[in-house]
Amino acid sequence: MSNPFFKKQGPFNILEVLKILKINHDNIMNKKQDIHDVKDLLSSSTNDITFFHSKKYKDVANKTKASYCITTNHLKNELPKNCVPLIVDNVLISVSLITARFYPEAVNDNFDDTVADITKTEFKEKVKFGKNVLVGKNVVLGTNCSIGHNTIIEKNVSIGDNCSIGSNTVIKNSLIGNNVKILDNCIIGKHGFGFFPDLIKNLRYPHIGIVKIEDNCEIGCGSTIDRGSMSNTVIGKNTFLDNQIHVAHNVKIGENGIIAGQVGIAGSSVLGKNVKIGGQAGISGHLKIGDNVQIAGGSGVIKDLPDNSKVMGYPAKNIRQFLKESK
Amino acid sequence: MSNPFFKKQGPFNILEVLKILKINHDNIMNKKQDIHDVKDLLSSSTNDITFFHSKKYKDVANKTKASYCITTNHLKNELPKNCVPLIVDNVLISVSLITARFYPEAVNDNFDDTVADITKTEFKEKVKFGKNVLVGKNVVLGTNCSIGHNTIIEKNVSIGDNCSIGSNTVIKNSLIGNNVKILDNCIIGKHGFGFFPDLIKNLRYPHIGIVKIEDNCEIGCGSTIDRGSMSNTVIGKNTFLDNQIHVAHNVKIGENGIIAGQVGIAGSSVLGKNVKIGGQAGISGHLKIGDNVQIAGGSGVIKDLPDNSKVMGYPAKNIRQFLKESK
Amino acid sequence: MSNPFFKKQGPFNILEVLKILKINHDNIMNKKQDIHDVKDLLSSSTNDITFFHSKKYKDVANKTKASYCITTNHLKNELPKNCVPLIVDNVLISVSLITARFYPEAVNDNFDDTVADITKTEFKEKVKFGKNVLVGKNVVLGTNCSIGHNTIIEKNVSIGDNCSIGSNTVIKNSLIGNNVKILDNCIIGKHGFGFFPDLIKNLRYPHIGIVKIEDNCEIGCGSTIDRGSMSNTVIGKNTFLDNQIHVAHNVKIGENGIIAGQVGIAGSSVLGKNVKIGGQAGISGHLKIGDNVQIAGGSGVIKDLPDNSKVMGYPAKNIRQFLKESK
Repeated sequence: MSNPFFKKQGPFNILEVLKILKINHDNIMNKKQDIHDVKDLLSSSTNDITFFHSKKYKDVANKTKASYCITTNHLKNELPKNCVPLIVDNVLISVSLITARFYPEAVNDNFDDTVADITKTEFKEKVKFGKNVLVGKNVVLGTNCSIGHNTIIEKNVSIGDNCSIGSNTVIKNSLIGNNVKILDNCIIGKHGFGFFPDLIKNLRYPHIGIVKIEDNCEIGCGSTIDRGSMSNTVIGKNTFLDNQIHVAHNVKIGENGIIAGQVGIAGSSVLGKNVKIGGQAGISGHLKIGDNVQIAGGSGVIKDLPDNSKVMGYPAKNIRQFLKESK
Repeated sequence: MSNPFFKKQGPFNILEVLKILKINHDNIMNKKQDIHDVKDLLSSSTNDITFFHSKKYKDVANKTKASYCITTNHLKNELPKNCVPLIVDNVLISVSLITARFYPEAVNDNFDDTVADITKTEFKEKVKFGKNVLVGKNVVLGTNCSIGHNTIIEKNVSIGDNCSIGSNTVIKNSLIGNNVKILDNCIIGKHGFGFFPDLIKNLRYPHIGIVKIEDNCEIGCGSTIDRGSMSNTVIGKNTFLDNQIHVAHNVKIGENGIIAGQVGIAGSSVLGKNVKIGGQAGISGHLKIGDNVQIAGGSGVIKDLPDNSKVMGYPAKNIRQFLKESK
Repeated sequence: MSNPFFKKQGPFNILEVLKILKINHDNIMNKKQDIHDVKDLLSSSTNDITFFHSKKYKDVANKTKASYCITTNHLKNELPKNCVPLIVDNVLISVSLITARFYPEAVNDNFDDTVADITKTEFKEKVKFGKNVLVGKNVVLGTNCSIGHNTIIEKNVSIGDNCSIGSNTVIKNSLIGNNVKILDNCIIGKHGFGFFPDLIKNLRYPHIGIVKIEDNCEIGCGSTIDRGSMSNTVIGKNTFLDNQIHVAHNVKIGENGIIAGQVGIAGSSVLGKNVKIGGQAGISGHLKIGDNVQIAGGSGVIKDLPDNSKVMGYPAKNIRQFLKESK
């Protein structure tokens, strides 16, 4: 988990945490313990609460330093002795509730009411800016940047040197490198499309990750890049995105990528370096796409692709095979 | 037809109506009759004009109370005696011309020049708002709402309680329920992509429907939801739309839908409840999609789907069959 | 090449040009010659530099009037005696460097800092406009136009009579005819997605073309139309585009086209007249699509299509064949 930006609340007494989880506190020894944060199994320390929801993470669960772990009856025996299992029906929903307690601002993305007109900020001498530019609290802007008309740099954004931001663009919760160009009408850093469906009212979960755009990137007009939920969304250095592209939460794109217009990349997929994607192609969520992969325009990728693959079609397959079969 | 918002002109004398239709008035008995509205066969009353363009509607045509009906030579005998047939070459073009006379503002969507800066309206105490927010005439805003920077709530919009509207969004001709979240850069309620092609200058037809977004919905960044032409466009309660989605005019989406990024739904299609649609999928116009249907990302649906279908591919077919065939 | 708008620098002494190209000047006879422009083989005159990068253009190369031509060792012998070949490794990269010298403003699209609030311009009496409308230098607006809130007409735009421009739209480097309607949130005329990939930092090339939108067109919400690189991007008269469409640089669409939502047309493709394209279809770059062609929604066109074709699928093929095969 990485949350350089979202203001953490707490600490909270363990009894308050148990109350949110609707768990009986009879078995809790130290009823005075304060919980400082919710973290993953690996990065938790004694005063944190963690979670464990899949056997995949068995080996890490074994070594967690957290004092408490949200988990299931089925998995609880994998935890070390120092860690009290907190048994729930749905681990991820419970984590969501606890995370929302620690990071309430990461659940909803209401507009940033800390912004001021740039002419009333320290940046008025430093950057070149258009009309009606707004800048929030906790913003860093490098040298030699330009920011277009009506653009909003909300709180918690850092932009490097020599960057050009277009007009009508909104950026929040983002770390942007040097020589980056973000064109008009983009939305960078809003929360992802992540929630727990419920028949009455879906439960949104907090997104405490950020968007990281590395040096020399270009982001085309009308693109949306959502910030991560528990990790970050990353655009690797010197990667160019064309217009109207959607990059979902937690996606990582390697360096030197070339991604044509209207491509969509679903949540948590990880792309290697030197990846080339043709227009309107789509990549499903939670996939691993290797280095030097080429995906033809309009393709739909639904499984992992090894390094140097060249694919086409839906579902995407070897391009030669596809063209042969589709004659 | 439903038009809570568009200002109706008229009534118009029947001779004026006939002139628009370029119909000779020799056979009209009551040359002094005023026509009050243009409505469909079912909802017309004595002082209205209606239209009948397809045999499908024979049974309703039979019982219409309208005094006049725009129709063809071929269909005229299905009308009751109280209803004078007005024979034209193209029923829909003629209806379009008459509707444009009654509802001239529903043809073009020029920007709303009734808007004022929200700081100069009654809402300045009631809602939380960003910089440069504009609000038009005939707008209702519930309690505990927030409206982001540069957003325009044009005339004829009603928004319920606890709603969050993002920045750079434009809303017009819409009824929005409670607890609705509309993110940045959306355009809600503009006229649909409906017109009669013509080799010199296409003829736009009026869109007198609205957009209805029910309670607990979320609409992602950069989405466009067009208002209906003769009926409404509806997003059912607790339905969540991801970024960059296009919902065309007259579409109805049932409750609890989950629709991923860059999906497009063409005009007049009706989706049931609990429908799940993967990213970039497309649904053709005038289709009926049942309850609990699941459509895989990137699919293209070109025919009706019964309840509980799970489909994939283009044209979309049973998902197991598709995956088997595409190995 | 057509560059009615971009301010040309120069002339430059031939030695300066050679320095940019890193070419030794030993073989240059007239070291005092000034170069006035970079143009294609056909339109160059004595004081211009041209380029020749493919055997396809052999017949034109033969007759060029340019004094200098950027080319390869392989092609140099096709040039006439009056033209000194300048041998480089990559002709297009070299042309890009020279073009950037003559037209530095065509490389980057930083926001236009020449704009003023429309209330402070000559147009305040002439057009109907919303709040916060900005207009740049060298703009022409016809009679009876309306421009929505927050819209930016950047420098170098000409708009005809009876046009309606929506809200939150940005237009630059464009020639727009009469009776054109451009809806909300569009970006018209920014540079295309054209650059030379490089492992450290991609090299953008200048886009000195414009966007031409002819009479009676409609451009839907959230659409992006990029300007041309060396030629223009053209939307033919009476062509209607729905929402969220992307038209890349150098594309030409004929008259009376009907293009549904979320379609994407890649760079340099040329479409005939009366072309109909269903929603979400994609057309690859550098294709020739004939007159009266119909492309079904969701299709992916990857080769030229003759007049009157009706296609569907990916890769798009005859619609009857496709539907038969996909049963």
